Formats: sequence, C-alpha cells, structure tokens
Amino acid sequence: MTQALPNFYTVIPAGGVGTRLWPLSRANAPKFLHDLTGAGTTLIRGTFERLAPLTGDRVMVVTGESHRDAVREQIPELAGGDLVLEPSPKDSAAAIGLAAAILHRRDPEIIMGSFAADQVIAPVDIFQEAVKEAAVTAATGRIVTIGIKPTTPATGFGYIRQGEALSIDGAPHACEVAEFVEKPGEQKAQEYVDGGSHLWNAGMFVAPVGLLLEHLKANEPQLHDGLVEIAAAWGTERQQEVMARIWPTLPKTAIDYAVAEPAAAAGDVAVIPGHFTWDDVGDFAAIARLNPAEDEDQMTVLGDSSRVYSDESSGVVVSETDRVVALIGVRDIVVVDTDDALLVTTTDHAQSVKQAVEALQKKGDSDVL
Amino acid sequence: MTQALPNFYTVIPAGGVGTRLWPLSRANAPKFLHDLTGAGTTLIRGTFERLAPLTGDRVMVVTGESHRDAVREQIPELAGGDLVLEPSPKDSAAAIGLAAAILHRRDPEIIMGSFAADQVIAPVDIFQEAVKEAAVTAATGRIVTIGIKPTTPATGFGYIRQGEALSIDGAPHACEVAEFVEKPGEQKAQEYVDGGSHLWNAGMFVAPVGLLLEHLKANEPQLHDGLVEIAAAWGTERQQEVMARIWPTLPKTAIDYAVAEPAAAAGDVAVIPGHFTWDDVGDFAAIARLNPAEDEDQMTVLGDSSRVYSDESSGVVVSETDRVVALIGVRDIVVVDTDDALLVTTTDHAQSVKQAVEALQKKGDSDVL
Repeated sequence: MTQALPNFYTVIPAGGVGTRLWPLSRANAPKFLHDLTGAGTTLIRGTFERLAPLTGDRVMVVTGESHRDAVREQIPELAGGDLVLEPSPKDSAAAIGLAAAILHRRDPEIIMGSFAADQVIAPVDIFQEAVKEAAVTAATGRIVTIGIKPTTPATGFGYIRQGEALSIDGAPHACEVAEFVEKPGEQKAQEYVDGGSHLWNAGMFVAPVGLLLEHLKANEPQLHDGLVEIAAAWGTERQQEVMARIWPTLPKTAIDYAVAEPAAAAGDVAVIPGHFTWDDVGDFAAIARLNPAEDEDQMTVLGDSSRVYSDESSGVVVSETDRVVALIGVRDIVVVDTDDALLVTTTDHAQSVKQAVEALQKKGDSDVL
Repeated sequence: MTQALPNFYTVIPAGGVGTRLWPLSRANAPKFLHDLTGAGTTLIRGTFERLAPLTGDRVMVVTGESHRDAVREQIPELAGGDLVLEPSPKDSAAAIGLAAAILHRRDPEIIMGSFAADQVIAPVDIFQEAVKEAAVTAATGRIVTIGIKPTTPATGFGYIRQGEALSIDGAPHACEVAEFVEKPGEQKAQEYVDGGSHLWNAGMFVAPVGLLLEHLKANEPQLHDGLVEIAAAWGTERQQEVMARIWPTLPKTAIDYAVAEPAAAAGDVAVIPGHFTWDDVGDFAAIARLNPAEDEDQMTVLGDSSRVYSDESSGVVVSETDRVVALIGVRDIVVVDTDDALLVTTTDHAQSVKQAVEALQKKGDSDVL
C-alpha cells in the first residue's frame, strides 16, 4: 500500500569495487552488479526495486563511466539525464553532491534520498516506513539519516548517537543526532550495543537538496562551486566539455565529512532508527551469513551448484565457471572460482582478501583485479 | 659406469589412472604422463632413463591404446614392436604376461625386469645396483623381486618377508622370499618395520621369461594360453585380428596372485633389499612430501608459480591453467586447478580423493574424470 512521496527523489551512488569480494567483485564487475544473496537480482536492481514504490521513476544513479551499459541493463527504467557518469572516482561527496546540484536546478524543493547500490535489506516494508519518516522529517528542513539498530558490536561501521526525540507529524520515531562517532574498538562497540542509544551509520541520507548544498558550500566551497557549474551545463550541449574540465579538479572527500558531521554539529541532522536487517555484504563471511547452507554438511553455493561436489566440508563456493568443483574435508572454506582468478581462503580470513588484492596489484597481476 | 646387462630387457607397464591424483591425473592424462616431482620429466620418462643404462634400447612399454602417441612422444627410443597397446585394461598379469610371451618368442633366454611407469626413486645408482643383483639372481632360475627397506609403518603397501640369504656370485644381498604378506593394519605394520625382516612390495619383478610363463601356465592356464596365442601373432599381419579376438576374453588378475605368490610358495622367488627411497606418488600428500616448500610459509607449487599468491598458507598447489591463484590463511591445503575441474582439500584428506572421483562418476560428471 506504499504510495510515492511527492518531491522525493532517490539517488543511488553505485561506486566502490568491493575489494574484499575479489575475484568475484572487481573493477569491471563491482559488487553492486552481482546477485550476492541468491535473490535472483543484482544488488543495484534490488536497491532500485526497494525504492521504486516510494519514488516511482524519479531515480538517479551516479556511477563510473565503465558501468554505463551494465547499469542501463539493470535499470532500464532510468531516464537519460538520470544516469550520471563519473569520469573517475571522486568519493561520495562529489557523487551525491552532483546529484543534489542537478536535482536542485530541476526543482529546488526536491527532497533526495541517497542509498548505496550494494546493500541488502529486509523486510522491505519496514525499510520503506523508515524512508517515509525520513522524507517527512527532511521536509521540516533537516538532513535525515536512517541508522540501523545494531545487532552485534561491529567494529567495521561508524555509529550515530541518538539525541532527543523530535515531535514531527508522520515521523513518530525521528530523533536529533547527538553526534556521529567513528568506528569503535571492540569494547566501545559493546558499550554502544548495550547502551541502546547508538545506531549503525549505514550511509543513508535523506535531505532537501538546497539544505544539502548549503552545508556543502560552507564546508567544501570548491567542491560545491564545481558541482554547481557542472549542474548548470547538465543536459545542454556543454555538459561533456564542462564535466571533462571540472571533474578532475574536484577534491575527493566523503559526504560524512563534507556534509553530515558539520551539519550535525550545527543541529541540522535527524535520525530515524531502522528496525530492519541491513548488510553491506562487505566480505565472503557476509555472503556465507546471508546464504546459509541447508544443513551443516553442505556448502553455500553462489552460481551453478550442479557441478559442485562436497564431502565433510562447509563454507561458501562462488562458481562463475562451468568447471567441476570438488571440496573434501575443508571447513569454513571460501572458494571463488572465476575465469581468470581463483581464491581459496576461510570465512575467518575474509577481511584479509583486501590485502591480497593490494599485493597482487604490486605484483603486477592487476589484469585480474 | 653402469653397463648394459646381457639378455636383460626392461618392461614398463604403464597403466592405472592414479585416481587419488584427480583432477591432475585422469583417464586421458594418467599419473605416469605427469612431472610430479618438479624434475622436468614425466614419471614414465624418468623410469625409462633410470633403466636405459642397464638395458640400452631393449625396453618394452605396455599401455592403453589411448596413450600411444603420448608414450611415443615421451620415449621416442621405443622400437615399433616394443610398444604393446592394450585394447582395454586387464590388470597386471595380462600386461606383464603378454610382454613375457612376446619376449619369449624372440629369445627364450631373455630375463625381463618389470618396473611400473609411475614411481619415483632415488638415488638412481643404488637402484641400478639392486636391479643388477636381481638380474644376476634371476639368471640362476628364480623370479626376483626388489623389496624396499621400509622407512614408515605404511599400511597402503603389501610386505615381503625375507628368508634365508642366498649365496650367489654378483648378488651378495639376495635372499629367499619367505612369504608375501597383505597390506597390514597399523600395529602389524609397526611390527614389520621394527622387526627388520620385512620389505615393502613395490611390484618390481625380474625373471627369466620362460620361468614366469611356466608359473603363469600353472596358475592361470587360460590367461597363459591366450597370451601365448597373441604373442605368436605379434609382428605378423594377424596381430591385430588375434589381439582383438582374444584380449577381451582374458581374465583380469594381478601378477602377484597369478605368479609371484604361488612361485614364492614353490620356493622359486628371491628378493633383493632396496636401500633407496621409493614413492609411488599415490596421492597429493605424496606430492607435498616429494616437493617440499622452501620455507614454512610457502606453498609447494607444481606448474607455473608466478601467478600463485599465498599468505599465511601452506600445502600444495597444482596449477595447470594460467589463472591467478590466491590462498589466504589455509594450512596444509591442496588446490588442483585444471581447465575443467578444481579440487580443494587438505593433505590429511588426500586419500579421500578416490571416493570423490567415484561420487562424481555416479553423479554423471565423468567428462572430467
């Protein structure tokens, strides 16, 4: 029964390679273009479908130039001007800021919601309720984030400390943000979970485009001015020339530093607690977690399982080839079988994949990265 | 300074797939066609080169029809009639018996030595000395085996119990064989090693061809008569017709049962203790053992190591493709990367590879076996 929200626009930044998911995820086939949950759809398509009921066809994707065709294939609903292609990666402030600047020229009253392309969320209806509350709260002149109620003392995420409740019609759970806090150590993380007033920062922002640009201008004036200049040329014959000239000069910084944290310090940020499960599928341990095997003596298989044979083994196999894969007596194993690269590790070592990729880069094997 | 022995003929039975070395070793690329020691030569070539100084070009290979070209490529020295091709596998009694029957027609005085194509032996000069003693002993009218001084209480081999020493000029270490004993349990195997009078049965036989055929006739008359009939047609225009007609009717049995054990019971078998290292490279644990890594934190790599990256890992990688292989945090791992099949197991589970192959056969994946 979800209805599209007036003036609400979804922005999907689709960046990042997902290095810890190499060799599945890589420069020319990043995380968001994979189906990592066995859902039958890629993560970016899942993101689109989760938000389409709220925004209809008012969706903009910001991604790298090399992913143009793949993203068009995944979201054929995208209008021409709503696929924003970055000539080079410039971090989240430039990506989200450019979307805000383009939308602001179309209609300064637009409220945009920015949701990364590579997250897994369920149940969808509870997520959508939180987004609605965020949009209603944003309409009162605030930048709104959706924080996730933590289920474990994760040390890999930043946290949001909730402040006082706000009294907003249609957004009964909205609170002030007391502060954004950096990724904690294990003890601090446990305190955050036990205390009950901290939420995971999932990088979801809902904001009036004008207010977002105001804060960007205050904190990153060069970035702001450059993005506004690109936006002014957007959709004109000068678009390409201006993009090519200005984009390379823009500073690289995260939206958290450029907008969210200073805006929170100014009292302009609210948070909606999200009581849904959320996973950024950061590594192969997450894939094992999100795709539990049917019983203990079975492997989780992503891809064609008909050619996978396992005995006394557990863990996850990602099969991107049509080869037979046989596993014997290996526990909590991670095997990723692609045409040009093979990874064998364990779920306990899932985080170390990043270092391996860096080592391969140094070693000169970047053709497979 | 080794000299060729008069009347001595080397026979190399090259059969068996080496199922425990799947997917490296398989029906169309069996164990003996691989370089499993990093020596730079295949096992069958190594076998030939170990024996050539003793027999010159008097070498006969018995193998499956499908390996004709590969064996010719490995041993271009083979004369036309000395490559015996089996239309189907018939176990060792038929293979070795046919070689004996063919050689017997050429010259009843020939002493043949049968040495499997897929064994690893060092040092070669000590092996050659043992073969010479075996040939000298065989010339006194005995079937002679070379037994290996056991270094571990192996349960995967049969054993030979030494009897009284024989006094033979030129064969100072020759002994009677008291009996052949079956593969023992762990306790028995330990007793054999501790006792000092048991040797591993490595399946090496040196015998006058006439005596070998006599025992074969006594124990397996149908097999004997069939082989003699094939041998009579060998090298004539009838060879193919007779082979095609008789071979399929021959019983399948091992040379141990058909000749060695009954001959031992009759007091006709001697043994030369072999004080060399011997390995039948039965599984991937053997490959790890035969190819030790340079240090603890390195992998043994068979194949191109330049694309193998490992961190906090140990074990063996067999790389038959040009893919990058990355291993992180896996100990005693076995990874065998071939074009159409991938095996991931541990050295502890090396023996279980056979069951996996049987399961794949049942499952219908026999295209990769």
